[in-house]
Amino acid sequence: MSNTAEKAYEELISRWKEAELIGSCAAILHWDEQTYMPRGGAQFRAEQIAYLAGLAHKKSIDPKIGELLGVVEKSDLTKDEFSDSGANIREIRHEYDKSVKIPQKLVEEISRTTTIAQGIWAEARKESNFGKFLPHLEKIIKLELEVADCLGYEKEAYDALLDNYEPGSTTETVIKTFEGFRKELVELVGAIADSGVKPDISILQRDYPIDRQKLFSQEAAIAIGYDFHCGRLDIAAHPFTTGLGPSDTRITTRYNANDIGQAFFGTLHEGGHGIYDQGLDPEHYGTPRGNSVSLGIHESQSRMWENHVGRGKPFWKHFFPRAQQMYPEALSNVKFDDFYFAINDVRPSYIRIEADEVTYNLHILLRFEMEHAFLKGDLVARDIPGAWNDKFKNYFGITPSSDAQGCLQDVHWSAGLIGYFPTYTLGNLYGAQFFEKAQDDIKYLDDQFAAGNFSELKKWLHDNIHTHGKRYRAGKLVEVVTGKPLDHKYAMDYLRAKYTELYKL
Amino acid sequence: MSNTAEKAYEELISRWKEAELIGSCAAILHWDEQTYMPRGGAQFRAEQIAYLAGLAHKKSIDPKIGELLGVVEKSDLTKDEFSDSGANIREIRHEYDKSVKIPQKLVEEISRTTTIAQGIWAEARKESNFGKFLPHLEKIIKLELEVADCLGYEKEAYDALLDNYEPGSTTETVIKTFEGFRKELVELVGAIADSGVKPDISILQRDYPIDRQKLFSQEAAIAIGYDFHCGRLDIAAHPFTTGLGPSDTRITTRYNANDIGQAFFGTLHEGGHGIYDQGLDPEHYGTPRGNSVSLGIHESQSRMWENHVGRGKPFWKHFFPRAQQMYPEALSNVKFDDFYFAINDVRPSYIRIEADEVTYNLHILLRFEMEHAFLKGDLVARDIPGAWNDKFKNYFGITPSSDAQGCLQDVHWSAGLIGYFPTYTLGNLYGAQFFEKAQDDIKYLDDQFAAGNFSELKKWLHDNIHTHGKRYRAGKLVEVVTGKPLDHKYAMDYLRAKYTELYKL
Repeated sequence: MSNTAEKAYEELISRWKEAELIGSCAAILHWDEQTYMPRGGAQFRAEQIAYLAGLAHKKSIDPKIGELLGVVEKSDLTKDEFSDSGANIREIRHEYDKSVKIPQKLVEEISRTTTIAQGIWAEARKESNFGKFLPHLEKIIKLELEVADCLGYEKEAYDALLDNYEPGSTTETVIKTFEGFRKELVELVGAIADSGVKPDISILQRDYPIDRQKLFSQEAAIAIGYDFHCGRLDIAAHPFTTGLGPSDTRITTRYNANDIGQAFFGTLHEGGHGIYDQGLDPEHYGTPRGNSVSLGIHESQSRMWENHVGRGKPFWKHFFPRAQQMYPEALSNVKFDDFYFAINDVRPSYIRIEADEVTYNLHILLRFEMEHAFLKGDLVARDIPGAWNDKFKNYFGITPSSDAQGCLQDVHWSAGLIGYFPTYTLGNLYGAQFFEKAQDDIKYLDDQFAAGNFSELKKWLHDNIHTHGKRYRAGKLVEVVTGKPLDHKYAMDYLRAKYTELYKL
Repeated sequence: MSNTAEKAYEELISRWKEAELIGSCAAILHWDEQTYMPRGGAQFRAEQIAYLAGLAHKKSIDPKIGELLGVVEKSDLTKDEFSDSGANIREIRHEYDKSVKIPQKLVEEISRTTTIAQGIWAEARKESNFGKFLPHLEKIIKLELEVADCLGYEKEAYDALLDNYEPGSTTETVIKTFEGFRKELVELVGAIADSGVKPDISILQRDYPIDRQKLFSQEAAIAIGYDFHCGRLDIAAHPFTTGLGPSDTRITTRYNANDIGQAFFGTLHEGGHGIYDQGLDPEHYGTPRGNSVSLGIHESQSRMWENHVGRGKPFWKHFFPRAQQMYPEALSNVKFDDFYFAINDVRPSYIRIEADEVTYNLHILLRFEMEHAFLKGDLVARDIPGAWNDKFKNYFGITPSSDAQGCLQDVHWSAGLIGYFPTYTLGNLYGAQFFEKAQDDIKYLDDQFAAGNFSELKKWLHDNIHTHGKRYRAGKLVEVVTGKPLDHKYAMDYLRAKYTELYKL
């Protein structure tokens, strides 16, 4: 390998790391904004974050990066696209090309438009007034189509946007995967709705003092392997996980004194994200090779810990007695089976973020179909409410009584995040497929969970997924790890088995 | 005024603000490091802060700033040095010249040397082993003398260093002021030590539950006018105040369950710093005109609220009944006079940061005399322990039993902060002189305090000091506000009157 290429690669990585370093500073400002910042600080904080984001952007689109890419791409460093250098060069090229293709003017117009649109959307949702939001949504769709045109695509505009969140995925694959899933899922949801047995979820809504919830959530996060030496758990109105450096990954949750589940499962969920970030290779910090694969793969980790592990029977074999000790007033007379059923309550509901693990996916499929349709021009924006409600009735058997409960509930479109929704369900599908493989590879996983031991699963995830960073893209990673391409059958098998037993289907 | 000068001034300010904006981001990272950062994050945090600090430095020494200064200095914008533009140009010139005069190589060597020296100093203090620290201190003195040479000075090297912390002050003035003060102070401390009456300080060391201390400290901070809409109170091992933006100034304290005073007076102290920063003119944020005058003036605010107000009789007329309600177990049988005497206990002690408001100044005078002497060459570094102990015996009547209790106790010298110590006592002197004037200007200040009303004093400080930012330098500000040059007599009068009564001298 030529010395020139080596040197160019070194400089490329060093420049990329500089942009990431600036980004990590901005991430701290953002974390602070969401957790501890006094209200008065909001306006200036926006200036600070915008400055750092702009600076990081400037560094990452420096023409010198293009030059260096040109040099290294002609060298042996890219011979194996899954080697450290191969993966880094592939992904830096990918991000660089995307960044330089969108004119600064368009970036700024989107920023302006979505800032205004988010304010209007919040009002429109409060008033359940879609008409108020409509012109802004129309403008956002137009701008996002422009973005797609700048980025370029083979088959359809949606491909270009989807790639922002799930690099390498195509609309075609997503449609194919989702369609098979939807059919079976609607059936399962229907069967559950028709079942005569129902859990008593009121036991989850008793008094659960928040100070004890904090202890219990932390205990669970520690048990599954979230490292508090390199992390924290704080309170945020909209819980999130953020990586602030190679040894500083923070999670957040929110507490409700009359709900044992919100903070607890929220902590497992964010803990899953956190364990992923904590498992990235610090040697490669600041490069794609040391970064997570995609939103979908990230979500596969959070959902797996939240649902496959955290809502499973073995998990609660260990944790239910602890919960009874922690909340004797609320739980001492509750039977294990009743508790386990209650935390796995499934029922059609209007609001995505409150949905259970079965119906959640239907919320996502619906949104994906909507945004795919309006981006393609098959659905005009003003017809969204009607189309939403028809589809909702079709999938869930119930109709939203207002747009606030329907197409106005999510912030995503107002923020310009078109192409983002599918990653939630992709995460569930990846997660199910990974988990099945882990169960195959690790014997007695259920027994380990029942004994409060989650370390082998964590190690398996670390070795198979976390430590590889962006070495493989999502689709490839699934194949490398499980030996098979993405298939909805693993998620469907898991859900069907679990809920057939619970609801005596 | 020429259009060219106007434009140059605008660009100058905009460039300066950019550097300050970057600095404010670094300040958040620093605040986080001292309050919430998980331990694992320390190493990378140092990288982040160093990067932002370096970037801010680069912006502030950009030759373009020198050029722009050259243009505006020839214009009418500097006609009145106390106008907004006059003050800004004067102070930017001052800082710019200082920054560009010190070669990057020297900056780096100091940074390396002091990083190592601080680690060694911490060990040396633990082992009370001055010899271990000595070679590092010698190197630091040598480097600081180089800095002074680069900066230039009229009379002596100490002038150049002092100017870093108290711009415009001279060693000569400080010596003159401190010498008069010292003589009278040693006398007062001696008289107090000889007095037969002593407070019972054990009443301050009873059980003071930390949760209630938090409420009580916050209540006091709010009462004196610290604004929690634009601020926070957190816990830090080494309490500090930091301004993170025009509407985000945060204070910290630390709690001891067997000490009612540490957190409470600490909060008043940091609250005083916080009120100053919160009172700076947001219109001028990011420019000298919107920044605090000096360390000494900053300290005058914290000391005034902590001591003149917070350890005063009128203050406790209001707060003592509240303290009794808050801590009935500890205080219900305690008499007002006994409590008031206990919180004003004065006695010679070895450790500066634990000293009372009277002896504290002697600690500072001693340190100033030491560092002035060793910088001048009148004292060689290896003789510091002996000289320290002799002086200490002389001023306090007692001798430290170890260097850990003596010349090794403070971090300052190991961090290269030579010239910093005098600002603590200058702060006390400024504070006393300001407070006397405020008492003259505002009638019935004592009655207001006794009624829990501190708003007129806060307003007076705001209008006379805070809102002016760096319009005037410290010495000038004292003259503008009080009509007289700095004089130790105000502090001495205050201390003598208060402690003559308490100790029946």
